[in-house]
Amino acid sequence: MPVIKTIREAMIGNDISSARTIINGTCNYILTRMTHEGRPFAEILAEAQAKGYAEADPELDVGGGDSGHKVAIMASLLYDGYVPYSSVSVEGIKDMAPEDIAFARELGYVVKLLGVIRRERPDSPIEVRVHPAMLRKDHILASVSDVFNAVLLRGSAVGDILLYGKGAGEMPTASAVVSDIVDVARNIAGGTPRRLSMDYYDEARPLPVKGIDQLVSRYYLRFSVLDVPGVLAAIASVFARHSISIASVVQRGAVEGESVPVIFVTHNAVEASVRAALAEVEAMDFIRAPTRIIRIEE
Amino acid sequence: MPVIKTIREAMIGNDISSARTIINGTCNYILTRMTHEGRPFAEILAEAQAKGYAEADPELDVGGGDSGHKVAIMASLLYDGYVPYSSVSVEGIKDMAPEDIAFARELGYVVKLLGVIRRERPDSPIEVRVHPAMLRKDHILASVSDVFNAVLLRGSAVGDILLYGKGAGEMPTASAVVSDIVDVARNIAGGTPRRLSMDYYDEARPLPVKGIDQLVSRYYLRFSVLDVPGVLAAIASVFARHSISIASVVQRGAVEGESVPVIFVTHNAVEASVRAALAEVEAMDFIRAPTRIIRIEE
Repeated sequence: MPVIKTIREAMIGNDISSARTIINGTCNYILTRMTHEGRPFAEILAEAQAKGYAEADPELDVGGGDSGHKVAIMASLLYDGYVPYSSVSVEGIKDMAPEDIAFARELGYVVKLLGVIRRERPDSPIEVRVHPAMLRKDHILASVSDVFNAVLLRGSAVGDILLYGKGAGEMPTASAVVSDIVDVARNIAGGTPRRLSMDYYDEARPLPVKGIDQLVSRYYLRFSVLDVPGVLAAIASVFARHSISIASVVQRGAVEGESVPVIFVTHNAVEASVRAALAEVEAMDFIRAPTRIIRIEE
Repeated sequence: MPVIKTIREAMIGNDISSARTIINGTCNYILTRMTHEGRPFAEILAEAQAKGYAEADPELDVGGGDSGHKVAIMASLLYDGYVPYSSVSVEGIKDMAPEDIAFARELGYVVKLLGVIRRERPDSPIEVRVHPAMLRKDHILASVSDVFNAVLLRGSAVGDILLYGKGAGEMPTASAVVSDIVDVARNIAGGTPRRLSMDYYDEARPLPVKGIDQLVSRYYLRFSVLDVPGVLAAIASVFARHSISIASVVQRGAVEGESVPVIFVTHNAVEASVRAALAEVEAMDFIRAPTRIIRIEE
């Protein structure tokens, strides 16, 4: 996909306020199959490895590192400075449970491993993060399935631009390399090898990055609780105390005395507050398993 | 959308076998609203004009001419020669009926005004056409709604690449112009004003264009017939005589003696044969209104 040319040339007349991307084919393939088949991560991963869609050591892909490195480079290009990989907040898909994908669907969302780069104003610190995210099912990125990749850029003049294509494989990679070689050849033929400077990943010009704790987002939380009276009230009051507003709650089919899922979906909240509330709730004795959190991307 | 850069630079290492595009925001807006609201073309057009989404004289947009001109330029760029507008087969959306959009949905399709450029082999004549087309609802172009535009390019190495964005409006247009000015400025600064030649629309090198009669496609046909015994058999036998194979037929809820729709969906067939069969059927005395034809794009 012509991401770099689009950022550096086609959108040169725009302030780009955000880039949201599905940029790892292995993860998107696994999540697509989990969504369609309702089966667990480990099973789909094993099949993907058998078919050659995932590496024997899948950590770099499913751990989110591959997406994180790509997002770091893209952030550097977008905002013309240095964004080291170490400043990117990275979560992968290894803990993704079929239950959460099913609840997401019920709530009208699709789960994708998303890379997000966002800068509110030219003087703001930038968000650079990779994590599973829920997207409304009619979001243009929600329809990016299987091994396809996409980048959605938001420009101040042009609005949203989406680039979509196969991100990996020997032929798409060769196609990109050929394009670069032809670019170089045209520049040499024209006598302008440095027509566009290539000083984007410059350590001398670090960009301020916003910590994930300061993120403002909506959150999906799945608590695993022992279904005893007062659980819902206990959780809700912790969230109220942290000024986190709840958009919806799903609890049903519970059998008293058994472990059941309780879903909370928040309105916009600061991640640090959500984490603090969560720590309080998780200390309560009706909690049966670690809570699953998925950020919701508007 | 960076269409020209993508064709001339990013995909330079590919033979591009097809470009399929939704490239007129007014038509896409009207068709999207017809699809969602089930209301007739004229009503939606009048509202679009009142809101400024359609011109006071909408003919260039809804007649397909605007898309046709853009497709002619794109074909010239793709295959490096002259494709005059007069060689483009153009149909607009003025005759689009809500019934056909509803039947399309029932069959699993969405109707879009599509520009199609296709060349099977480097020595083949090219298809260059604009017309309403049915796309399977999970087709990536089916999700391009409202005033958004998209171009789906198929490269021999890279596979499918989609570019998606707002195609019109003063700011997106300004953004594209600024990008071109910066390109020119970079070339002047680099002393290479002719780094990329601009000889694509060269009348001295006309490209062979395939007539629409030779198109091979699937077809949706809606006959308006008087519901008397033997109608289905009469239509089917004409199609059989022209060696056109039928994929499905929809007829139901008919009241004998009244005018009813009968839908035929063909397998791949040559347009000239379909037109010949249609002429025979339309001469039959049970036909009550002109038949509607929509091509199906795989």
